[in-house]
Amino acid sequence: MPITTFVFDAYGTLFDVNAAAMQAAKDPAHADLAAVWPAVARDWRLKQLQYTWLRAVAGRHCDFWQVTQDGLDWAMEANGVIAMATRTRLLELYWELAAYAEVPAMLTALKAQGKATAILSNGSPDMLNGAVSSAQISDVLDAVLSVEDVGIFKPHDRVYDLVGAHFGCTKDEVLFVSSNGWDAAGAAGYGFQTAWVNRAGEPIDRLYAQPHHVLHDLTTIPELT
Amino acid sequence: MPITTFVFDAYGTLFDVNAAAMQAAKDPAHADLAAVWPAVARDWRLKQLQYTWLRAVAGRHCDFWQVTQDGLDWAMEANGVIAMATRTRLLELYWELAAYAEVPAMLTALKAQGKATAILSNGSPDMLNGAVSSAQISDVLDAVLSVEDVGIFKPHDRVYDLVGAHFGCTKDEVLFVSSNGWDAAGAAGYGFQTAWVNRAGEPIDRLYAQPHHVLHDLTTIPELT
Repeated sequence: MPITTFVFDAYGTLFDVNAAAMQAAKDPAHADLAAVWPAVARDWRLKQLQYTWLRAVAGRHCDFWQVTQDGLDWAMEANGVIAMATRTRLLELYWELAAYAEVPAMLTALKAQGKATAILSNGSPDMLNGAVSSAQISDVLDAVLSVEDVGIFKPHDRVYDLVGAHFGCTKDEVLFVSSNGWDAAGAAGYGFQTAWVNRAGEPIDRLYAQPHHVLHDLTTIPELT
Repeated sequence: MPITTFVFDAYGTLFDVNAAAMQAAKDPAHADLAAVWPAVARDWRLKQLQYTWLRAVAGRHCDFWQVTQDGLDWAMEANGVIAMATRTRLLELYWELAAYAEVPAMLTALKAQGKATAILSNGSPDMLNGAVSSAQISDVLDAVLSVEDVGIFKPHDRVYDLVGAHFGCTKDEVLFVSSNGWDAAGAAGYGFQTAWVNRAGEPIDRLYAQPHHVLHDLTTIPELT
């Protein structure tokens, strides 16, 4: 079945989630981050994701903005960063994350081929709208789908169901793209075609399904038809 | 309500999960672990837990022995450890993990007070029986409860339900003890009294509930009545 619908994870896939800590660390006003920003960024992301999974297992959903703040609070404490001004700045930057350099051209190429394009993300609608607007890619996205419509985080089936519900397509017409190995595995287990963008050169996750494609970045996505 | 029933997480709480990698690293036959065993132990545990949560969210349960092997395979690849003999040895040692030094006296003191004692763990029954037998604590445990009876991992409510189903006690008669912050939070959210054994001095998890007690080790557990 040819791919008609290209669906992208947002954080880590289209948007660089480490950019907030890196950018804030360059500002002399946040010198407390200078030495520790890579560890803060790593722990922030790790806890943010852990909290989504734990809340999904326990049936204790909250929106992604809450777990983003909760993960940052853990990461700041773990790395001895205490300034509230630094917390405020890191959270501000999360609303205007940079898109990876190849993103606009890649999405434009897909639209030129007549493909449908969308984001499917744990992010809340307002976070996603902020990031899409900041990255100036709203013209090349047909839909921005948020887990808030189903009230549970990835990799629950109800999240991936949002794609078929919105586009009326079958699972095997969808290429789902994520830089998160667990998300690519989850989507593959669900029945989508999947591409894992392994920017960091990590080992593949040993889960219940494997991605169909493993890529270094998003450049070649329009060739996967 | 006085505590009648003391329930313990197993891995990390009664049994030292880092002991396997540390012990194997001392053996000249596994020199490939000498420099990297702390990273292997950390990544092994991190992935093992991630896989339990992801499988619980996606409804893709398997037993804990499978995710223990899967997590080790990821950790070995991430740290450049490739010898199959090392994999075999690390997995063998997981069946005979050391209990923390204070465990036998602490459980004996609880039994002398007439309290009920149990393990409630993600582990499969055979893994748990192996560890309990190796640590020689079967005489001071009234029950060894495994998630395999409900087919989903912690922190799902059905797992914590096993305690009341076995002992016929109410939630507020139970003290649940875990060194895993997310497990202590999960049990607190469920309605147990909880103690978090924060051996590593980590920040508290920012989740939907907080433990009632925070301890450095298990020594003072018999005083929590």
